[in-house]
Amino acid sequence: RSLPGEPMKILIAGMDGYLGWPLSLRLAAHGHVVAGIDKGSRRNWVEEVGSHSAIPIASLDERLRAFQDLTEQPIKFWTGDLCDYSIAKDAIRAFRPDAVVHLAEMPSAAYSMIDADHCAYTQRNNVIGTLNLLHAIREENPSAHLIKLGTMGEYGTPNMPIPEGFFEVEYRGYKDRLPFPRQAGSWYHQSKVHDSNNIMMACKLWGLRSTDIMQGVVYGTRDGTPAADDRFRTRFDFDQCFGTAINRFCAQAVAGIPITPFGSGRQVRGFLALQDSMTCIELVLDPPPAAGEYRVINEFEETYKIVELAGRVHDAAMELGLRAEIVPVENPRLEAEGHYYSPDRRTLIEWGYHPTTDMASELRGMLEDLVPYKGRILEKASVIRPDIRWNGTKKACSSLKVL
Amino acid sequence: RSLPGEPMKILIAGMDGYLGWPLSLRLAAHGHVVAGIDKGSRRNWVEEVGSHSAIPIASLDERLRAFQDLTEQPIKFWTGDLCDYSIAKDAIRAFRPDAVVHLAEMPSAAYSMIDADHCAYTQRNNVIGTLNLLHAIREENPSAHLIKLGTMGEYGTPNMPIPEGFFEVEYRGYKDRLPFPRQAGSWYHQSKVHDSNNIMMACKLWGLRSTDIMQGVVYGTRDGTPAADDRFRTRFDFDQCFGTAINRFCAQAVAGIPITPFGSGRQVRGFLALQDSMTCIELVLDPPPAAGEYRVINEFEETYKIVELAGRVHDAAMELGLRAEIVPVENPRLEAEGHYYSPDRRTLIEWGYHPTTDMASELRGMLEDLVPYKGRILEKASVIRPDIRWNGTKKACSSLKVL
Repeated sequence: RSLPGEPMKILIAGMDGYLGWPLSLRLAAHGHVVAGIDKGSRRNWVEEVGSHSAIPIASLDERLRAFQDLTEQPIKFWTGDLCDYSIAKDAIRAFRPDAVVHLAEMPSAAYSMIDADHCAYTQRNNVIGTLNLLHAIREENPSAHLIKLGTMGEYGTPNMPIPEGFFEVEYRGYKDRLPFPRQAGSWYHQSKVHDSNNIMMACKLWGLRSTDIMQGVVYGTRDGTPAADDRFRTRFDFDQCFGTAINRFCAQAVAGIPITPFGSGRQVRGFLALQDSMTCIELVLDPPPAAGEYRVINEFEETYKIVELAGRVHDAAMELGLRAEIVPVENPRLEAEGHYYSPDRRTLIEWGYHPTTDMASELRGMLEDLVPYKGRILEKASVIRPDIRWNGTKKACSSLKVL
Repeated sequence: RSLPGEPMKILIAGMDGYLGWPLSLRLAAHGHVVAGIDKGSRRNWVEEVGSHSAIPIASLDERLRAFQDLTEQPIKFWTGDLCDYSIAKDAIRAFRPDAVVHLAEMPSAAYSMIDADHCAYTQRNNVIGTLNLLHAIREENPSAHLIKLGTMGEYGTPNMPIPEGFFEVEYRGYKDRLPFPRQAGSWYHQSKVHDSNNIMMACKLWGLRSTDIMQGVVYGTRDGTPAADDRFRTRFDFDQCFGTAINRFCAQAVAGIPITPFGSGRQVRGFLALQDSMTCIELVLDPPPAAGEYRVINEFEETYKIVELAGRVHDAAMELGLRAEIVPVENPRLEAEGHYYSPDRRTLIEWGYHPTTDMASELRGMLEDLVPYKGRILEKASVIRPDIRWNGTKKACSSLKVL
């Protein structure tokens, strides 16, 4: 790639995931050359916790064929694990990407809290995979731009505004620009903190360039890809581990079972629709940071209390003639339920980000897309109610009084 | 243990190491019941990098026999790897320690910077071992006090005073007590940052109690244990990976080869003698923190520029009639050489810490102890000069102009 704005070669680690698959399609549709790494771990994790995607998805092989049908080109794809250094190295050497989008992390807080083995698995998978990407980029193609998906959860809920990665601070008469302290609340979120620290150091020591996206909770079924071919559809998880809050609530509404926010539901988080999360990644791609630059952006559209979201899903469901009811359950997590929350999201706005959808229309679309699969949700309805508790025990959470 | 001041049951993870071995002896001599975990990794690492301990040490089996001779009791000891969860769990369950001193981490920055595999090994070993200890303590004996040896290197060299773990900060009109940001400079140091973050979270979520010691660079051959029995002696490494600065300088002076500070030698670090590092750990043991408390202390005696230390070693060697010369080499590390450095060390002082030795007498003792092993140092002299560079290459550093 010689000029800004020209198509790039983009390697998607975790191409088979919820975000990785539609992102690959979109980037290809926008003229980029896409290559992938995956070994289908997301499918295995969801199966392990007893669930499946509400919306049926094509196998990895079928997806790759569909991708080649779409682009009319063979795709470079590595079936394997980033924790195996040779996979990372081979992919970077053979493809020489302009950018690497790292979506190959185990993404569930609850899964990481199951027990000692799942905790160790999560941190090993995420930390070693990221370290291997850093080394492979340094050795094979040090100008490649690493885009890592972090999470707003890395910051926790400090009693002050949350800047984008760094803050200017004065302490005992001295001033410095420091990384904003991270106070994550699960082994998964901690693994992302470790990644952030590792990447920050690699940029400083080795002159690598990276954008670390602190992403809010992503929701949605629609990704802007052609709906004509079912093979293009992305997965939709609704279990306690891999279903994020809004996705879970929509699945519950469609299945006619209660929508279950955790505890008081006063926890505030940042949210963003699947297709807007892809829009953000596209914005981040070009221009890349300078050599040695580690830039952090916060990525979400709006912040909501969880209980407000439950209400939004409830209302959207009622409009579609679904019966919906909100029944909070005990909070299996250990987290602050009433807290200050005011994160910045300046960079994307400065770069011209505009949402392509809004929550109301997205919720309507999700419910419509899920209705045909009510049976698939009900078949696995037992996996929605949480029993993985942050205190280390495993016991189904009981319902709280109906609001 | 029912009363403060009474003997404790103390599990030493990493009992066979430089600090672990003399600490075990001292704690036993002071009436505590000591158990251990180790699998001899330190011996393997040093062998892997082509070196050996300047002072010959007994085998692990001989050490355990010596320990039992001293205490006149069988010792509970687990030969194994903390990355194997069953080892951590068995040890905590069977021994039910009041305190666990975690010294089972791979401690070398240079070793972690060799290549992708050594980086991954370091972070896996340190992070997973610590996670396993946290889970085992939660499951088997949640009131146990975890003492983890971190490093002053976790903080990096920010342009402000370094508090002990946390700072009160005001930002955009809001105040909070936040973890002080960590900016470590090697994969090893980053692994300790990850551990700190993981332990902080476990204390918060699970009510565990931990003291995290940000330790300066430890030096010395004398540990206050009875010198009568050679089996009690601790190891002394002088290679580029496992020899810390002062230890390396003393080995060089004894071997009659140049003392080689890195670069300008203006880097400032905190230092402390081996026997005082043990004194600090004893102080930390009692009283333990409250349930849920994660306390961080900075532990060092004085801060010095590296070039000052080289001068001190030079002078001590000359006094003993050794010929010594200082010849700086290229700095294989990527680090700030001229920087502000003013870390706090308040807690230990408040708790009544007094050094039991000073640098001058410690240096004299080290040189005396090493003189009989000049041959062993010369035999491996090629491992002192650094060739592991922080930029990822491996090339022997050449000498700089003589100061």
